[in-house]
Amino acid sequence: MAISMYQASVPVFVRMFGNLSAILTKAAAYAEAKKIEPRVLLDARLAPDMLSLTRQVQIVSDTAKGCGARLAGVDVPKYEDNEASFDELQARIAKTVAFLNGLRPEQIDGSEDRDVSIPTRGQPLQFKALPYLLNFALPNFYFHVTTTYAILRHNGLDIGKMDYLGQP
Amino acid sequence: MAISMYQASVPVFVRMFGNLSAILTKAAAYAEAKKIEPRVLLDARLAPDMLSLTRQVQIVSDTAKGCGARLAGVDVPKYEDNEASFDELQARIAKTVAFLNGLRPEQIDGSEDRDVSIPTRGQPLQFKALPYLLNFALPNFYFHVTTTYAILRHNGLDIGKMDYLGQP
Repeated sequence: MAISMYQASVPVFVRMFGNLSAILTKAAAYAEAKKIEPRVLLDARLAPDMLSLTRQVQIVSDTAKGCGARLAGVDVPKYEDNEASFDELQARIAKTVAFLNGLRPEQIDGSEDRDVSIPTRGQPLQFKALPYLLNFALPNFYFHVTTTYAILRHNGLDIGKMDYLGQP
Repeated sequence: MAISMYQASVPVFVRMFGNLSAILTKAAAYAEAKKIEPRVLLDARLAPDMLSLTRQVQIVSDTAKGCGARLAGVDVPKYEDNEASFDELQARIAKTVAFLNGLRPEQIDGSEDRDVSIPTRGQPLQFKALPYLLNFALPNFYFHVTTTYAILRHNGLDIGKMDYLGQP
């Protein structure tokens, strides 16, 4: 199978959401077993001015749905960012995966030179779709998955690299 | 420009090494300004059974040179893993980037179905090159770059997401 804009985005995100979901399932079980209030983990962060675990997961979702939608040339779904439990984070992951799975390869393949505009508080960031995917969306996606993992490891959850990578 | 196995690997790694190098330059300056023994940061980790900053940077290098070499079908360069200072980590990054820049697109493009074998302590992991790149090498690469960033943020270094992403 040849690499393509679709292959390098949607299935990569979907696969990683499976790993992230399994990690969050372990985190919820750990909170239960250790009688840790789930909120303690959901609000945990690695530095006072870094984002909490809940926000990390929301941004993983935002990065993936934004990338899939922009590459396909469809509107980015808006979610409310009101998740307050592990179950609600799992539901957001499921909703994001369902959106991604609804995108078809023919909407995304060949999108390399499409213009992509990312809203920011200031000037929007302007990209062509190929550097957007490779140098912005994928690094951002993995940043927030890894930070979620790191917050949980730092808080004592017994997970390892294979939980992050999934079965090869 | 069309996405290809080369475009999705070598220039992505090289670009990210520029960002990582700039982050480590800031870390060294921070240690100097705050009179922190550099070893404190180089040995820092997010959990007692996670790897130190030095090992994270070494593995970023290993992941990138291993991926570039395997996709190109050449031997993976062996480094000694004896870096003990920020300058030595910078030298390792420079050496890795020089190796990657020596790989030519025509060695890597079209490698999607090539067999890739990754030595482990047990059975080697067997992949085709496309899933190896997308589901193993890139996630692993970003995992260790992000963990390097997270260790430094957790230890008070004033960096933000744009240091990680670089200028778009």
